[in-house]
Amino acid sequence: MAHQQHEELIQALHECMTACNHCYDACLREDNLNMMANCVRLDRECADICSYVEQALTRGTPFVSELTALCATICEACGEECKKHEHDHCQKCAEACFKCAEVCRAA
Amino acid sequence: MAHQQHEELIQALHECMTACNHCYDACLREDNLNMMANCVRLDRECADICSYVEQALTRGTPFVSELTALCATICEACGEECKKHEHDHCQKCAEACFKCAEVCRAA
Amino acid sequence: MAHQQHEELIQALHECMTACNHCYDACLREDNLNMMANCVRLDRECADICSYVEQALTRGTPFVSELTALCATICEACGEECKKHEHDHCQKCAEACFKCAEVCRAA
Amino acid sequence: MAHQQHEELIQALHECMTACNHCYDACLREDNLNMMANCVRLDRECADICSYVEQALTRGTPFVSELTALCATICEACGEECKKHEHDHCQKCAEACFKCAEVCRAA
Repeated sequence: MAHQQHEELIQALHECMTACNHCYDACLREDNLNMMANCVRLDRECADICSYVEQALTRGTPFVSELTALCATICEACGEECKKHEHDHCQKCAEACFKCAEVCRAA
Repeated sequence: MAHQQHEELIQALHECMTACNHCYDACLREDNLNMMANCVRLDRECADICSYVEQALTRGTPFVSELTALCATICEACGEECKKHEHDHCQKCAEACFKCAEVCRAA
Repeated sequence: MAHQQHEELIQALHECMTACNHCYDACLREDNLNMMANCVRLDRECADICSYVEQALTRGTPFVSELTALCATICEACGEECKKHEHDHCQKCAEACFKCAEVCRAA
Repeated sequence: MAHQQHEELIQALHECMTACNHCYDACLREDNLNMMANCVRLDRECADICSYVEQALTRGTPFVSELTALCATICEACGEECKKHEHDHCQKCAEACFKCAEVCRAA
């Protein structure tokens, strides 16, 4: 079954989506939100694509390689932005993004 | 056909999604982003549900009344937040939200 | 944090989304697909709303009660349809749907 | 504004999403659904990505070229499947898919 073949990938996507949305939520509560604008934006982009790819994999999409390549690109961009910021939620998000990008590239 | 019966509704959802995402994008470019944090958050909530309901209607979802009731609630919340702000993108977004809520309530 | 408060719910939504998409994929491979048409349709409706609510919870949506009420309704409708069919994927999907509806109702 | 630059593209994506979901809905009502299984599957894949990209463009996503390249690939696959079937909804869907792929490739 498709969703069993991709178990590690689905897990990484799920953790990245969660970390990005947590970071997005936490950024919107930060005092100096202007410094976090690009982080908010990329968190949304990354959470949305991770959620999308996760769903697509569980339904047996025929576009696995195309979707994971795109997802890796977006995860890397989000990870690069997040790692610039010292907030714990940003550092954790960067880690989840780079992990997810790596698993996507290996898919 | 489902998507023809709901033509006015789909149009209102599409315009509201566009206005919310435009407002979200513009808020993230504003100088005083901290004042716009709740607007950013509700713009995303509202754009996402409008996009979701629009898709669901075009595929003949059996859950029209439940989805439009939820969407109206979220549109109204987003409209109330946006109308507090003088930015042109916020005022336009509030207008699109209230219009969409009205069409959803009538569906 | 929002996504920690809702850990059990997020888990149930994730399992229901997976079960629905697995059932959808398996239905589309069945010999007598005409008997499964409504199952395919409701699997998609249910997977989509579960995925949506899961994401919304992780980003700290202010609409938890409205989203979980809607999701419970759709999960129950999908569970009722799936439990009519003897296929293993349908029975497992029905179980995941009813479990998710229950956790949504308790949220 | 991002969503004005991409007006033609957003229109093509919206029409393709609508045509795919209409075809999906109509396929699920056909007498010989087994012949339409791959059409149902690709209609969902294509509607979902078109809806996704449409939303992403309106929020000023930084990933325009990556998203439109992926979308074109999926639109073409869906169009190839739909054009095999004589149903009016399939033929119309194929047309919308190829049109959307073309506009995506030019973006």
